[in-house]
Amino acid sequence: MKIKELLFGPIPKQTESEYAELDLSQYEEVMEPEPAETYIRVAELSNLDGISELKKEIYEGNVVVVDISAIKRDQMMLERALRDLHDVVSDVGGDIAGLDDDLVITTPTGIKIDRSRIGGR
Amino acid sequence: MKIKELLFGPIPKQTESEYAELDLSQYEEVMEPEPAETYIRVAELSNLDGISELKKEIYEGNVVVVDISAIKRDQMMLERALRDLHDVVSDVGGDIAGLDDDLVITTPTGIKIDRSRIGGR
Repeated sequence: MKIKELLFGPIPKQTESEYAELDLSQYEEVMEPEPAETYIRVAELSNLDGISELKKEIYEGNVVVVDISAIKRDQMMLERALRDLHDVVSDVGGDIAGLDDDLVITTPTGIKIDRSRIGGR
Repeated sequence: MKIKELLFGPIPKQTESEYAELDLSQYEEVMEPEPAETYIRVAELSNLDGISELKKEIYEGNVVVVDISAIKRDQMMLERALRDLHDVVSDVGGDIAGLDDDLVITTPTGIKIDRSRIGGR
């Protein structure tokens, strides 16, 4: 079971697999009733029609983690999508960078991505 | 070659692999000279000593994407790390959620994580 499934799903049963599955939800912060200034949203991009909603989020001041796994083998679509996202973050003074093979982070005005990594390799 | 390598490395040569490698750096926003209010930083957590630097980042108002792949098979260490991070974000009114199997996002004051996903499944 994936962590992201644990976050949204029921409490998992303990199994005897290689390592015990962890219910990350117990460590999750409870959403407070008042709205936040900025949200981090996750979006899965499967075609270019999805770009407009991502633009809207960035213009509204939200960070979007874009899952490009569904389109990354279509180089033309990927290039077009990244160019569009680049234009938006450029317009608002945000930032864009790849996080791993499948994830690209886009940020709104006032939020930048630090390219140096803390710890590790 | 991974996108994150493309971001920091030289311009890749075009290959005849399954799909052409993409130089994402051309779409990256140029870092502006003035400092941003908030940074998104990526941290790889390999032991509990690394937690203190992550706490510092969160207290300073930065978002940290924590790569837990190196510790996720050590359930006790993972639980301890997540509990510590939870306590910090709880203290500052931030948020914490798993992004995928290997990545956990922690946010500072004023930034929340929206659990609904845009598009996709």
